[in-house]
Amino acid sequence: MSDDGRVIDRTDVERAADRIAGRVRRTPVLEVEDRRFGWPTFLKLELLQHTGSFKPRGIFNRMLAASVPEVGVIAASGGNAGLAVAHAARELGHRAEIFVPESSPRLKVERLRTLGAEVTVTGAFYAEALDASAERAAETGALVVHAYDQPEVVAGQGTLACELAEQIPGLDTVLVAAGGGGLVAGIAAALEGRRCGVVAVEPVDVAVGGVAADSLGARRVGRICFAVATRTGIRSTLVPDEAIVSAQRMLWAEFRVVAEPGGAAALAALLCGAYKPHPDERVGVVVCGANTDPATVTGLSGSAK
Amino acid sequence: MSDDGRVIDRTDVERAADRIAGRVRRTPVLEVEDRRFGWPTFLKLELLQHTGSFKPRGIFNRMLAASVPEVGVIAASGGNAGLAVAHAARELGHRAEIFVPESSPRLKVERLRTLGAEVTVTGAFYAEALDASAERAAETGALVVHAYDQPEVVAGQGTLACELAEQIPGLDTVLVAAGGGGLVAGIAAALEGRRCGVVAVEPVDVAVGGVAADSLGARRVGRICFAVATRTGIRSTLVPDEAIVSAQRMLWAEFRVVAEPGGAAALAALLCGAYKPHPDERVGVVVCGANTDPATVTGLSGSAK
Repeated sequence: MSDDGRVIDRTDVERAADRIAGRVRRTPVLEVEDRRFGWPTFLKLELLQHTGSFKPRGIFNRMLAASVPEVGVIAASGGNAGLAVAHAARELGHRAEIFVPESSPRLKVERLRTLGAEVTVTGAFYAEALDASAERAAETGALVVHAYDQPEVVAGQGTLACELAEQIPGLDTVLVAAGGGGLVAGIAAALEGRRCGVVAVEPVDVAVGGVAADSLGARRVGRICFAVATRTGIRSTLVPDEAIVSAQRMLWAEFRVVAEPGGAAALAALLCGAYKPHPDERVGVVVCGANTDPATVTGLSGSAK
Repeated sequence: MSDDGRVIDRTDVERAADRIAGRVRRTPVLEVEDRRFGWPTFLKLELLQHTGSFKPRGIFNRMLAASVPEVGVIAASGGNAGLAVAHAARELGHRAEIFVPESSPRLKVERLRTLGAEVTVTGAFYAEALDASAERAAETGALVVHAYDQPEVVAGQGTLACELAEQIPGLDTVLVAAGGGGLVAGIAAALEGRRCGVVAVEPVDVAVGGVAADSLGARRVGRICFAVATRTGIRSTLVPDEAIVSAQRMLWAEFRVVAEPGGAAALAALLCGAYKPHPDERVGVVVCGANTDPATVTGLSGSAK
């Protein structure tokens, strides 16, 4: 349910795809041809997207669907959503004000400023930064861009699944990290009515602080995600932190892909057996983000040097 | 010219493609849709290949085209070719003996051993390790796999261009790092007679020791490359080391791709203007290897953390 009481469907995703065309990259798919994982597996390399995550899809859609006032846009996020808001605002010529919690790494804050955003550091946790941004938005009238729980944001994230369905004929299942649920809900809406299941993968440690918290750190799934999940019957599965770290290492060792914990969570579900496909099930795995220090993923055995 | 006096052509590349099918990955292409570089640019992400470089294409072809004796295969390389030889031998169930110079990083040697190869460290430079491996091969009768200057190796590397021509309709030009010339010669042979030019990109500092020396460290282009280049009219261009480092940083900052210097050299030619396409020229850029310490490519501005 959104502020206007509307839950998105496939039409919203298709409209989003038209709206953001040319603004986001059609990210490629790597077929893991050798049954390395036991099933025909396809890695959707969404980490090659602008700003290193899927977030610009939904955020461009939010800004392009709205009438952005002179004062610009406002958002709360010290992570991938913040980067995407700053990037999209710059591309579209809008001012961007971003609220981040004190826990945000200094370098992420600097990166936001490099992208031209005005950054306010406040509150210990995301929820506090979000509240502060809402107060500020009420004062200024800036367009509020939510990191995941707005219909246009969710619809934009769903465009990833439109690409995926075109790129992988006969796709049976999409595995995707849950986080705040914007991506998984968008994907489920995009694929509703097709014969393709969606599995949301969540780290076992749901308290903010596990390895995936940096990117999957939302403390609860958004309302829109909940509504779409209920309607479409998204399945979900849990993965322990260790499995996520293993998946990160394997992505580097086997594919030279640097994935953040949230970006590797979907693959982790396959590797640790949390999700077991049927034989010949064609599985799309969304590798949705790369915003981490590469040194954390290479380990010793993964590095060739 | 090869030992049997034969220079390869497109038929050899097509045969290689059949031979190695299922052994190597069809690596994806990322379209840089937004004219970020001024021209329609396509990144061939060959760094996602097994062992992190294009090398397995040619090396699988060499092993599969030959009758490998019980004693196995032998090669000299402390770099990407060595990794590919060890990987291919393990996949095909052959013994592998690999000679590396003393300058090889310890971790690369360990990685070869992890892949099951028997490693001999000898000689200060590659040429000495190569001589030692040739002496040893004469004693044992092992199948010699050259890093770049054998017809089957060159033909196998050329299979990358068969994929590229399918993946990019209307491709005008391929930019590719030169190194020992195996890849560039294979690509030129594959594309001979089509309306697609090949540009070999070489670091300015040709002495072993520049930033790209680790992967492009061959001190001269192989005989086969020279012969194919003469016949097909490969163009070439030089790029300074600084441009290669910039290209590495940009690949991380814009695409979250970790490229080794040799892997970034082709893009460097576009970025520094060493190669200037015509307007609307459709340019394929081969990002051919990732075997580097990621810490070296992220810089400060590139990292999001």
